[in-house]
Amino acid sequence: MFEIRTDLAVEEKESFPGRGGEVKGVSLREWRKACSKIKLTEVAILDEQGARAMGKPVGTYVTMEAKALAKGDEDYHREVAEELSVQLKTMLKELKKKHKVPDRKDIHVLVVGLGNPSVTPDSLGPKVLGNLRVNRNMDEGQEDAVLSGIVPGVMAQTGMETAEILKGIIHETEPDMVIAIDALAARSIRRLGTTIQLTNTGIHPGSGVGNHRHSLTEESLGLPVLAIGVPTVVGAAAIVHDTIAALGKTLASHMETQEMGDFLDQLDPDEQYQLICELLEPEFGALYVTPPDIDQTVKRLSYTISEGIHMAFFSHFSAS
Amino acid sequence: MFEIRTDLAVEEKESFPGRGGEVKGVSLREWRKACSKIKLTEVAILDEQGARAMGKPVGTYVTMEAKALAKGDEDYHREVAEELSVQLKTMLKELKKKHKVPDRKDIHVLVVGLGNPSVTPDSLGPKVLGNLRVNRNMDEGQEDAVLSGIVPGVMAQTGMETAEILKGIIHETEPDMVIAIDALAARSIRRLGTTIQLTNTGIHPGSGVGNHRHSLTEESLGLPVLAIGVPTVVGAAAIVHDTIAALGKTLASHMETQEMGDFLDQLDPDEQYQLICELLEPEFGALYVTPPDIDQTVKRLSYTISEGIHMAFFSHFSAS
Amino acid sequence: MFEIRTDLAVEEKESFPGRGGEVKGVSLREWRKACSKIKLTEVAILDEQGARAMGKPVGTYVTMEAKALAKGDEDYHREVAEELSVQLKTMLKELKKKHKVPDRKDIHVLVVGLGNPSVTPDSLGPKVLGNLRVNRNMDEGQEDAVLSGIVPGVMAQTGMETAEILKGIIHETEPDMVIAIDALAARSIRRLGTTIQLTNTGIHPGSGVGNHRHSLTEESLGLPVLAIGVPTVVGAAAIVHDTIAALGKTLASHMETQEMGDFLDQLDPDEQYQLICELLEPEFGALYVTPPDIDQTVKRLSYTISEGIHMAFFSHFSAS
Amino acid sequence: MFEIRTDLAVEEKESFPGRGGEVKGVSLREWRKACSKIKLTEVAILDEQGARAMGKPVGTYVTMEAKALAKGDEDYHREVAEELSVQLKTMLKELKKKHKVPDRKDIHVLVVGLGNPSVTPDSLGPKVLGNLRVNRNMDEGQEDAVLSGIVPGVMAQTGMETAEILKGIIHETEPDMVIAIDALAARSIRRLGTTIQLTNTGIHPGSGVGNHRHSLTEESLGLPVLAIGVPTVVGAAAIVHDTIAALGKTLASHMETQEMGDFLDQLDPDEQYQLICELLEPEFGALYVTPPDIDQTVKRLSYTISEGIHMAFFSHFSAS
Repeated sequence: MFEIRTDLAVEEKESFPGRGGEVKGVSLREWRKACSKIKLTEVAILDEQGARAMGKPVGTYVTMEAKALAKGDEDYHREVAEELSVQLKTMLKELKKKHKVPDRKDIHVLVVGLGNPSVTPDSLGPKVLGNLRVNRNMDEGQEDAVLSGIVPGVMAQTGMETAEILKGIIHETEPDMVIAIDALAARSIRRLGTTIQLTNTGIHPGSGVGNHRHSLTEESLGLPVLAIGVPTVVGAAAIVHDTIAALGKTLASHMETQEMGDFLDQLDPDEQYQLICELLEPEFGALYVTPPDIDQTVKRLSYTISEGIHMAFFSHFSAS
Repeated sequence: MFEIRTDLAVEEKESFPGRGGEVKGVSLREWRKACSKIKLTEVAILDEQGARAMGKPVGTYVTMEAKALAKGDEDYHREVAEELSVQLKTMLKELKKKHKVPDRKDIHVLVVGLGNPSVTPDSLGPKVLGNLRVNRNMDEGQEDAVLSGIVPGVMAQTGMETAEILKGIIHETEPDMVIAIDALAARSIRRLGTTIQLTNTGIHPGSGVGNHRHSLTEESLGLPVLAIGVPTVVGAAAIVHDTIAALGKTLASHMETQEMGDFLDQLDPDEQYQLICELLEPEFGALYVTPPDIDQTVKRLSYTISEGIHMAFFSHFSAS
Repeated sequence: MFEIRTDLAVEEKESFPGRGGEVKGVSLREWRKACSKIKLTEVAILDEQGARAMGKPVGTYVTMEAKALAKGDEDYHREVAEELSVQLKTMLKELKKKHKVPDRKDIHVLVVGLGNPSVTPDSLGPKVLGNLRVNRNMDEGQEDAVLSGIVPGVMAQTGMETAEILKGIIHETEPDMVIAIDALAARSIRRLGTTIQLTNTGIHPGSGVGNHRHSLTEESLGLPVLAIGVPTVVGAAAIVHDTIAALGKTLASHMETQEMGDFLDQLDPDEQYQLICELLEPEFGALYVTPPDIDQTVKRLSYTISEGIHMAFFSHFSAS
Repeated sequence: MFEIRTDLAVEEKESFPGRGGEVKGVSLREWRKACSKIKLTEVAILDEQGARAMGKPVGTYVTMEAKALAKGDEDYHREVAEELSVQLKTMLKELKKKHKVPDRKDIHVLVVGLGNPSVTPDSLGPKVLGNLRVNRNMDEGQEDAVLSGIVPGVMAQTGMETAEILKGIIHETEPDMVIAIDALAARSIRRLGTTIQLTNTGIHPGSGVGNHRHSLTEESLGLPVLAIGVPTVVGAAAIVHDTIAALGKTLASHMETQEMGDFLDQLDPDEQYQLICELLEPEFGALYVTPPDIDQTVKRLSYTISEGIHMAFFSHFSAS
């Protein structure tokens, strides 16, 4: 139930020894648009070897990062929304090329707002759906995409797996693809509210702030699943881990003996995590750490993401 | 789209000329429990003739009424919750006798909270689900019923018919029956927040505060559907109708001529409604009338209803 | 307690016989900006004679109207926000000229979000405050205005008059002026969500959707009070009145006798209202009529108004 | 800004070496009612020496604890509400004996719901106020207490200190005393949602989940202030501290050398905290740790607390 983790591929990549070092089966690309404060990173997990190393499935993970996202600058959010729409369209094009979704403008996209609307850091998905303009119920003879949307709720409130609910709805309404929105857990506090991750691999067990036991993937749902996420919490275990690391350094520099530091250095990351789990598990369960202004962050970014989706799928939104 | 209506069978029955008069194919029973302020009414629509006369499908409609429900007396709400559980169990027993649901204690009930959580008088269903204790996700080897629950949202937010969403979920999770909770439209203001209706006929087009175009019935969902509703609004047309009637009486008593009153008397109810529709439709659409303290009413009654369901299905709740 | 009314000066003006006709002590000005769909109307009540005729205090009432406001076009809302900021700045300039507020850039403005956050059509004020960027708590050495904000709640929840709460806060924090935001009651349904009224007369008894018994004016608070309002409801009595008027016309054209129509024509507006009150009062109380999609309207316009305030007071917002 | 702390006097007391050991100027009393699962603890800080040792002001801190509080057992919550009302009445009697509040039944109590309604673990105060029955606005010739209530909001939303807002309201409405409700920070995770603290010392800087810089005490507000709190978060620093302690033990038992453990033992608590602060401050700010089901806890306990207040002040509630 409890798990130390990051939902961000870019953080997983950074955690490898000799940061920036090569991992077999994983490619990394970083770039910035001209005149933009947004840093883009694409982590591509190319094969099973990369997947094992990263603990994440094969696929593409694009990260948009900017410290200013944590602030409420409106023009800035528009820029991020546009970048999100560009990345969404790129992934969509690829899905069409691979004949995973039909090459029509009016494809039907089911947008899923995961999470618990009454727990602030877990409410990103429901809030995005609150801003979303669905049009499947309108008779528009349109050339745009057809959007439908659902907030499936969390298992403690429904008694059902999210995957069950979605499979049923997909069975009835036959969308061409799914976009799932979820609040994520990061390993580093500086990521909170400053990063958007877009991936074509769907949602995996242990992803997200809440506890979504079953995966929401092409394999489980029978449809391509893009996932958009923003880290809003850090697991308590990650905090403890980072602090132990920092403590190790402090001890090494402040004390004559380096044994404590040495001890920590001797542990490989898996062993360190094991130790943390032993310490935390019985008492802490799935506790998470979140800043007190997370409500503002979630409100703002839910708007940015819904705008990004509108720009990607509705022609009259993209001309800005 | 716009429709003058009451969702309460008891009001429909009252509207017949010579109130309390007999309607072919409809039976009426009224009673009070000893020492209780709750008035119970059962309207049974027995055949197609009754259904046509009442404009509602064949089935049983039980109404629990009490002025005190509009107040916040807690002991009182407990009494109403208990009465609701008694009526629920009676309907359940009948469903079992007719072999529509299996005669086991641990039947699986899907509870559906209809309506829009962000529109106060339409938020009854979602609020009941917020209080509901689902247990399908727990492994209890229990003798109690298995409850799951869903808030499907409204079409303007999902782009999907509620019936589509529910059919899908039923297909996947295979409940034995459905209980649907909805805010209702009454014809009389004094019903707002003072009445709970329980019926075994499900939800029909035009029922509820919002606009649920497709019906949620045994026919459409393939499962027995009990529906629990509380009137929280009166359609604008009903207000106008009542006022015209009152105006007719005022004119008749205040003026020398009685032609206006006579004119209104000559119109049968259908014609009166037709006239009102002509007047209202272009301008008013689906407007409704609601009191300013409806938030308190919805909050309290959502708790009463969730408790009634708990008492009906969970053994450790019923011993009070 | 119950009252038939409009909070819009422009509607009050329209209600005079020979619409558009002159009223002594009241001036009317209508205009459109070039290339804009926004219609502006300024009703100036010049003296006590005008005030008596209009049933509203001496002062200026500016209305921004546009059907498109009911839709979610974002660029359009920006245009309205800008126009609101222009009108706010005009009123502010006048207050400075009259030495009612100091002629400094960094004046301290207390923004008040009136209404009940848990009743959808009454939640405009609290929602605007949810979007507002206050800065009184920041130490910025700024040249901008200093904003503080409060959601005082409603008397049923606080047991206090809103005026008491505000007087206390003003006593402690000494702002230079107040801007009060409130949901309004209109007389005509087509105004709902399509009109913003800005006035320099504050809030008066009977204004707003809820029941604010005491006035919030320069007289009661000791400070200039600008008020921004959007009609979100129509009183049930206004609906009835409009329908009776329409019924009169229908009867006049459909019946041989015109007595009913004549009867209604003979009544002057006050008498008509008196009749409606007699009919409605005992049963209906302060009921109001509102459309089912009012949640979307309130959400959108709360954003438009907060942006208008930001543009009026923060220099880095106005350069768009 | 950042602070490692517990708002619970009982935890502060437990932290002293030789747990349960005597602290000069502090008395401790623990008891259980017959047939009750509630454990009561009274920590009385008797003088300045005790205040310095405890880091909390002179006064009485009563804690009601029960693991079952974290569950949703309704009868159980009623028992806790009754115990809270007993303790409230005891503190009230003492205030009357000391002539700090008038010895009348109809004293006027201002109930203050501190915290941010849109951040789940900080929303306890606003939620209690949502359940509270104020009656100051009613003309009842009553013998009961007069309750008024306010949700002042948080400084990031108002730009004002909570103390400023309250001082103003007290100036205008002249209550006899204040009861402040706030979400608290505990040091131990097992306290979350299982403990209610009642104190006659008011709210102090650094108390509560959010950041209330100024104190709300008899000194600052000019009135006796009772405070009711429930721990809903643990500061990130406390987690780190507990883990370091546990790590120390693990190292001591698993490693040959005990230097690491020794190192930690050598540090007195203040030094340990200093170290944690150094580690956490730059990066973590005021981060807190909270469980994912905190929404349910806050919902349930807000109801328990409002009922406790009703039972303490309204005669028709106490006869249960």
